Amino acid sequence: MMIASTLIAMTLIAPSDPSVYPETKATAEKTAVSPIFERYRGPAQRIITAALAENDAYRKLEELCTRIGHRLSGSPQLEQAIDWAVETMKKDGQENVRREKVTVPHWVRGQESVTMIEPRVERLAMLGLGGSIGTPPEGITAPVVVVSGKDELNSIGDQAKGKIVLFNNIMPPYDPEKGSGYGPAVQYRGKGATLASEKGAVACLIRSVTAKSLRSPHTGAMRYGANDKKIPAAALSTEDADTIARLQARGMPVVVTLKMEAQTLPDVLSGNVIGELRGSTQPDEVVVIGGHIDSWDVGQGAHDDGGGCVMAMEAINVLRKLNLIPRRTIRVVLFTNEENALGGGRAYAADHADELPKHVAAVEADSGVFRPTGYSVECENKEREGVAAEQLRDLVTLLSSIGSMKASTGHSGADISPMKPAGVILMGHDVEGATYFDYHHTQADTIDKVDPQVLSQNVAALATTAYILADMPTRLGERSNP
Amino acid sequence: MMIASTLIAMTLIAPSDPSVYPETKATAEKTAVSPIFERYRGPAQRIITAALAENDAYRKLEELCTRIGHRLSGSPQLEQAIDWAVETMKKDGQENVRREKVTVPHWVRGQESVTMIEPRVERLAMLGLGGSIGTPPEGITAPVVVVSGKDELNSIGDQAKGKIVLFNNIMPPYDPEKGSGYGPAVQYRGKGATLASEKGAVACLIRSVTAKSLRSPHTGAMRYGANDKKIPAAALSTEDADTIARLQARGMPVVVTLKMEAQTLPDVLSGNVIGELRGSTQPDEVVVIGGHIDSWDVGQGAHDDGGGCVMAMEAINVLRKLNLIPRRTIRVVLFTNEENALGGGRAYAADHADELPKHVAAVEADSGVFRPTGYSVECENKEREGVAAEQLRDLVTLLSSIGSMKASTGHSGADISPMKPAGVILMGHDVEGATYFDYHHTQADTIDKVDPQVLSQNVAALATTAYILADMPTRLGERSNP
Repeated sequence: MMIASTLIAMTLIAPSDPSVYPETKATAEKTAVSPIFERYRGPAQRIITAALAENDAYRKLEELCTRIGHRLSGSPQLEQAIDWAVETMKKDGQENVRREKVTVPHWVRGQESVTMIEPRVERLAMLGLGGSIGTPPEGITAPVVVVSGKDELNSIGDQAKGKIVLFNNIMPPYDPEKGSGYGPAVQYRGKGATLASEKGAVACLIRSVTAKSLRSPHTGAMRYGANDKKIPAAALSTEDADTIARLQARGMPVVVTLKMEAQTLPDVLSGNVIGELRGSTQPDEVVVIGGHIDSWDVGQGAHDDGGGCVMAMEAINVLRKLNLIPRRTIRVVLFTNEENALGGGRAYAADHADELPKHVAAVEADSGVFRPTGYSVECENKEREGVAAEQLRDLVTLLSSIGSMKASTGHSGADISPMKPAGVILMGHDVEGATYFDYHHTQADTIDKVDPQVLSQNVAALATTAYILADMPTRLGERSNP
Repeated sequence: MMIASTLIAMTLIAPSDPSVYPETKATAEKTAVSPIFERYRGPAQRIITAALAENDAYRKLEELCTRIGHRLSGSPQLEQAIDWAVETMKKDGQENVRREKVTVPHWVRGQESVTMIEPRVERLAMLGLGGSIGTPPEGITAPVVVVSGKDELNSIGDQAKGKIVLFNNIMPPYDPEKGSGYGPAVQYRGKGATLASEKGAVACLIRSVTAKSLRSPHTGAMRYGANDKKIPAAALSTEDADTIARLQARGMPVVVTLKMEAQTLPDVLSGNVIGELRGSTQPDEVVVIGGHIDSWDVGQGAHDDGGGCVMAMEAINVLRKLNLIPRRTIRVVLFTNEENALGGGRAYAADHADELPKHVAAVEADSGVFRPTGYSVECENKEREGVAAEQLRDLVTLLSSIGSMKASTGHSGADISPMKPAGVILMGHDVEGATYFDYHHTQADTIDKVDPQVLSQNVAALATTAYILADMPTRLGERSNP
């Protein structure tokens, strides 16, 4: 399947990091709340109290991570996870639970390695990048040339020809003001192979996109340009990139052998998972909440994005148990194939095109299971975005018993982004971001990194928000009659 | 070479962690300083100012870690490192620089893997334990039985027979009051294979000895009992141990295949490295300062213990440059083979037996390059230990411009411990311990984890302490005439 590179580009970005979205504007916290939201103070507190006291999200996530594990598009585990989600939501008594067909790419990693052979023999910590081609069986053996980025690559003339280019682009430590710095750091994962290939390189290595490492390589999607001579691409741990750079700085030439069995097989059928809490009076109007059910083929996809999936599944479960049925329908959508083509998000927007005018909002949780910090909003219609942001400033004050929350504008989530052209109001479920990129796309994204109490806080915030959005007398983004 | 298990046991313990040494007693900080130490206030400040302004320790450590890398006993890298240390100290103008022969064991890891084959196929993150035997080429395939420790193993009767026992003993998070908890956690690394073998197990796995992991396995020494039926032993990352325990708790049997090529080859010749700053008036009296030049065969041995080696090398370098020549000799000793037999420490004590009565003190730095926190002391003669501790309380007040320091009793260092029976006063160079065990014995113990400024603080503290110990009118541990 041919995929627009702009859509793939979206998958390279973590949705709720302010540093990734420089246009993101946090809005001032409100003190007085308008009457439209004041009426939800009681239900909000009921939902929060119930969700924090007891909910099934951690049990669900533990089952997904432990019993099934990681789940890349094309893998049997992804289909097991989809089946599990359908069964689980049926058992929970959700309505219209189903799987909706999505065609997805099928990239497989196979065996892979990077071995330094000069100036000494040492196996390096690496992960091939998703979408990369493989190497010949004997591997590619070549000198490494280290550059900090595109400018340095351009400055070294033809020195990259016949060599392996290592982009040693350093992601800064997390900064509470500036965010993670993931956006600038991730660019070489996506386009490094293209840049290196243009200079005649035979393979591309990148420094893993993280500020913190225990020799932990980070995978993720790469893409080739339409006119590229394709070369294999892999990520080294930050430590290995650092060592090669230090050896080069000492004038000690580094030669490595890269072996990758990676290949792209024919597309396969996968599916988005749907389950609903049907609305009481306007069931045709829909609030989508969700995350993505696929993950990379390492770790367990606990933070990315098993956590987002179970938050959504459990949000409607909590509401149903409280018998809090809003006017409109809350639809859980667990998108497939976010990681390496956004197939699920695109299919949902296409297959539900007729219905999108009745989508009141779409909320995605895909930033890990950390302390919830509020909601961001974006909409093609800037006037509606502004009204929605103002309303969300009110709404998040009702979540203050969970913790300090903010509303902001400028970003949302990758899977819901294909609904943007239709004018749907998109929202990101934001969380504290200090450690997300330590685990992101690694073997270390496992259930033991998830705090059950923090997961409950997220369920409480999402359930409350979804309930209010689905029950508000006027739609989000529309001015109410006072 | 036959090695007493008590000596090997010492190598299993990190020297300066108060939780490892429950008998450790921190002593109250002094306010008034006795005249014997007051006279060193000027020299101490000169040394500290000079060391913090500029020193060569980080350059040395960077060269050792980058150019040579890890260096296990028997490896060419260890001998390169020893040669490098000799050459470096000669270039620095140190006296009596030499290599002293030590016979060391030669264990090699080879290729190794643990693959879960039931309930799903997944390669686990592992490192074989040093000293372990290998498996047959086809590996050992068996069900895993998870136990928390010895008591649970004893309670399950003959269920371990024919199986692979996994000791899932959890090391708690670092606690500033209680320390790292390394001591209780490490026991199954050393003796797990013996315990499992006694129950008829075919192999032993342990949970890596760390409280923090990014899927990072930790190696370290294990040992067999004289009457053991030897079985192979390896460490899994905490995440993998956790997953297997969760699968077992779900009633899902786990089967793994363990493959290890590990073997013990004939002993080889290695060496301790010696270099001196000769004393001006009592050169026969010696203060030993040092660390160990060997490391595990992973990472770069940056914290463990390249850092300790360069602290000692640079301490006498700083003094020599300041032309601060103490009465007694300061001898740098970089011990070989600390990690898997304590060969260097035992050889030094044996080969210098005649000279030990003239050893005023021996100070070891082997707890990583973190903020220096003072000195601990131990001595067979408890009266001398008490006097020494009292004197060190005075001494560390002269280091207060570096940071808050304490003197304590009850521990010192592994390499110097063989000098204890001869009555030598042993001291540990203590550092803040919150993150040491995140890196300890892993691929992640690399130069990028070392802060140059913190390394300088350690050089300043060790140089000052060594100078005062070597220049004091009376020996450490002896009461002075007021």
